[in-house]
Amino acid sequence: MPAPIDFYFDFSSPYGYLGSELIEALAAKHGRAVAWHPVLLGVIFRETGSAPLTEVPLKGAYSKRDFERSARFHGVAFRMPGRFPIPAQTPSRIVLALRDRDPALAAAVARALYRAYFVDGRDISQPEVAAAAAEGAGADAAAARAAVDDPAIKEALRHEVAQAIAAGVFGSPFIVVDGEPFWGVDRFPQIDRWLATGGF
Amino acid sequence: MPAPIDFYFDFSSPYGYLGSELIEALAAKHGRAVAWHPVLLGVIFRETGSAPLTEVPLKGAYSKRDFERSARFHGVAFRMPGRFPIPAQTPSRIVLALRDRDPALAAAVARALYRAYFVDGRDISQPEVAAAAAEGAGADAAAARAAVDDPAIKEALRHEVAQAIAAGVFGSPFIVVDGEPFWGVDRFPQIDRWLATGGF
Repeated sequence: MPAPIDFYFDFSSPYGYLGSELIEALAAKHGRAVAWHPVLLGVIFRETGSAPLTEVPLKGAYSKRDFERSARFHGVAFRMPGRFPIPAQTPSRIVLALRDRDPALAAAVARALYRAYFVDGRDISQPEVAAAAAEGAGADAAAARAAVDDPAIKEALRHEVAQAIAAGVFGSPFIVVDGEPFWGVDRFPQIDRWLATGGF
Repeated sequence: MPAPIDFYFDFSSPYGYLGSELIEALAAKHGRAVAWHPVLLGVIFRETGSAPLTEVPLKGAYSKRDFERSARFHGVAFRMPGRFPIPAQTPSRIVLALRDRDPALAAAVARALYRAYFVDGRDISQPEVAAAAAEGAGADAAAARAAVDDPAIKEALRHEVAQAIAAGVFGSPFIVVDGEPFWGVDRFPQIDRWLATGGF
C-alpha cells in the first residue's frame, strides 16, 4: 500500500474548500488514501509575513471573483460567507479529535464543516454551529463540542501547525505527494500526472 | 473578428515566460489574436505592497521548484537564470517600439527575448544583449538598441504600465478575455473553457 497523500488545509480558505471537494477522488483514482491536516494560516502567515489574499490591494477583488469562477469551473457549490475570514481553531480541533481513532469519519466531518461554511454560510468558528455540522456527518455532537475546549486537543493542533510549518507548508490547500510539495488547487492537474507517472 | 486577448507579462517573470510559450496556441485554437503588453511588476508591486514570490520566506524555495516543475509539466524549456530578477525596462521598450507598426513581429521578439533569458540565461536587461536577441527574431538590431534610450518609447512604457494598473493587472502573466481577468498560467484551462463557451 503506497503512502497517503498529505492534504493541508485551513478552514477559512476558499481554495482549501475547493480542494477538499476534489482531493479524495483524485487520490482514489491512483489508489491512494488522504491524510487530512487542518492548519492555521494565521499562525503560518506570521512566519512568512504574508497577508490573506483578500486583504491585498487589487488582488482582493480579483480573488473573490476567482473563488466563485474556480468553483463553477470545478462544478463545486460555493457561496462567499458573510463573515470572512474566520478563526479556524474550532473546526480544526473537532477534526483532530476524531482523526487518530477514525480517519474516514474525520475526513467526512472536515468536508461537512467546510460545506457548512462555504455553501450554507454557517459560522463554524462557533462551537455549537461546528458541533452540529459534525453531527450531520456522523460524529457525536457532545464529543465534538467538548473537543473544542480540550487542552490535549488544543495542544495537538499547535503540534499539527508546527509540523506543517516544518514540512514547508505556507498556504492552503497544500499537498505533499511522496515528498513533493504542491501549493493550490490549481496544481491538481500536476498532482494527477505526478501520481500517474511517479514524477516528471 | 472577435477582440484580441490581452496578455500582460513582465520579462522577469518565470510564469509570464511559460505563458508566452502557450498563449498564442490557446488563442488561435479559438480564432483569437493576442495583444502583448509588457509591464513592470516592480512598479505594480509598489502599488499593491507585494514582493517578488522568490523573496518571500518558504514561498521562495517552493517557487523555484514550481517554476521548473511547471515548465516540465507544460513541455516548455526552462532554466532558472543566474541573475534573477532583472529590471524589465530594456526588453519591454524593444517590444513596445515594434508593436504598433508590426504586432506579429513584436510578439515574436517578445518570445525570443523571454527565451534568451529563461532558456539561454542571457541578461536581457543589457541593451546590446536584448538587441541581439531581437535581431534573432527578425527585428533590426540598431533600431532595437535605439528604442531602449528613446524618450518617446520610455514614455510609452510608463503609459502601458499605468494602463495595466488601471485595468486591474497585479501579476504576471495576467490575461483579460472580453473583460474577464485571469491571473497566472495555471488559469489557462479556465481561459480555454471561457473562450470555448463565452463564459461560465
